[in-house]
Amino acid sequence: MAIIVSHPSPEKIDWWIGQLQPLLPGWTIRSIHDPGAAEAVTYAVVWKPASGAFLPFPNLKAIVSLGAGIDHVLADTKLPRQVPIIRTVGTDLTQRMREYVALHVLRHHRDMPAIAANQREKRWTQLVVPPATQRSVGVMGLGNLGGTAARTLASLGFETRGWSRTRREIEGVTSYAGAAEFDDFLAGCEILISLLPLTEATTGILGTSLFTKLPPGASVINAGRGPHLIDGDLLAALDSGQLSHATLDVFHIEPLPSEHPFWTHPKVTLTPHIASLIDPPTGSRIVSANIERFEATGHVEDLADAERGY
Amino acid sequence: MAIIVSHPSPEKIDWWIGQLQPLLPGWTIRSIHDPGAAEAVTYAVVWKPASGAFLPFPNLKAIVSLGAGIDHVLADTKLPRQVPIIRTVGTDLTQRMREYVALHVLRHHRDMPAIAANQREKRWTQLVVPPATQRSVGVMGLGNLGGTAARTLASLGFETRGWSRTRREIEGVTSYAGAAEFDDFLAGCEILISLLPLTEATTGILGTSLFTKLPPGASVINAGRGPHLIDGDLLAALDSGQLSHATLDVFHIEPLPSEHPFWTHPKVTLTPHIASLIDPPTGSRIVSANIERFEATGHVEDLADAERGY
Repeated sequence: MAIIVSHPSPEKIDWWIGQLQPLLPGWTIRSIHDPGAAEAVTYAVVWKPASGAFLPFPNLKAIVSLGAGIDHVLADTKLPRQVPIIRTVGTDLTQRMREYVALHVLRHHRDMPAIAANQREKRWTQLVVPPATQRSVGVMGLGNLGGTAARTLASLGFETRGWSRTRREIEGVTSYAGAAEFDDFLAGCEILISLLPLTEATTGILGTSLFTKLPPGASVINAGRGPHLIDGDLLAALDSGQLSHATLDVFHIEPLPSEHPFWTHPKVTLTPHIASLIDPPTGSRIVSANIERFEATGHVEDLADAERGY
Repeated sequence: MAIIVSHPSPEKIDWWIGQLQPLLPGWTIRSIHDPGAAEAVTYAVVWKPASGAFLPFPNLKAIVSLGAGIDHVLADTKLPRQVPIIRTVGTDLTQRMREYVALHVLRHHRDMPAIAANQREKRWTQLVVPPATQRSVGVMGLGNLGGTAARTLASLGFETRGWSRTRREIEGVTSYAGAAEFDDFLAGCEILISLLPLTEATTGILGTSLFTKLPPGASVINAGRGPHLIDGDLLAALDSGQLSHATLDVFHIEPLPSEHPFWTHPKVTLTPHIASLIDPPTGSRIVSANIERFEATGHVEDLADAERGY
């Protein structure tokens, strides 16, 4: 009855232990760096575990990802592939993501970067943009988070389309599916939002080939994962004017190194991986409830599909 | 069968004439500065008319305000009070206003000013805010624009309240009415949006007395009219920390003079009266349709109540 917590930041390990212990009183919860008897460990609660991190623990029943994505777990080449992976999702996380997407799509739509620049220059310039009903936006990835984000954009009045591996039915959203419909989807995205899971197929998808299929002057929002984006391709597309703006929440290396050109590029809005951050009370409640349910029944709704990659 | 157009900007007069003429082919449309036979003029399409502007025209059937508010017409002390005033509203304008309110409430809610400052300083700081479901926001003024804005905020998940002269029923919005419930309303507004009409009773309403009734650190969005706000009171409340941020779309003098402190105040976001700007094709369609309907029936839905002031 022991749980280990793994996180790149030692303070975050202590913090998660402190949060989870009161919610799981029957369990021993320890740091992966001081795990106690390895045989007793049956659950691992992890964010970006080190390669081989799970090898010392022969009795793991499940690995709990501290996030909706499991790419950071699958990145471990020595991962015991038979151990189920539990994602951490929930209404708070989908709520936060739909707020982020609504905020940043509206920000692009209403040209806030230009308005902010005008304020800095004390320029009173009344830029007129079309109403959202005449603005076509698209969401790539229509899972838990992407589906809710697309529904929210539609409810705000945007002409909304979505793209996913298999077709989804979402009210007010035009659905495009698979490789065959990808170019048609992109051709109508004045503002493109990526909420894809990170898999081999989606790595580097936000690159020159995709950008040139968007309407000229389109903008891009990446709230999926850093490796979806080819950084140099984005900079080239912004500098050529092919793209007008990018809002990025995720990066190849986080925290983003201070010398990276994204920090200071006038056409880049940068947020530090906060689109849908797990907050302390909510995240702990979801994680502890999932562990208790999995322990009792051997199943939870938020089980990932390691084969598929998300 | 003549219409005159009045606007402080001569170019805008020409522009509105050019827009309206093709939509009202049977009418003569002229500038107020070159009106032709005064007796023939039966409609005036106006934005901020000069005092006494209507005196030369004895046969006016209606004055059309180029906006939802009529305060700029009522400001004329020599206004012929018996002439009906037609407001210009419509789905495009309510759509634009709900976009503006959603954008700027989300921007305050997710602390974008701080995130933008962090980008400028290359600081990777993950600010965690509560989800919108735990954020209480309030809309003052629940007319056409305010009611739609409140409904939109509720649909985004915010705990939404509204205040108006008389009680309104809006799904998902807690209604407060009249002076008796004003303080209770304000006590729950972490983000306060004003979309009030400008009347004697609402002039200067956004001042110290109101600000001190908001939760400490609240923020304010004024998309109503400039004279709702006491500029000095706002600056004092921002500087003391009583308020954390203000987003202002309207000002006592527009364009806002370049020496005004709002331009450079770090806690002020300034937009140049664009929350719900009438765009050329839409505005012209609404204005011409209203004139035709009023001419045919003597009535339109968008008739203002000059006695009430909006």
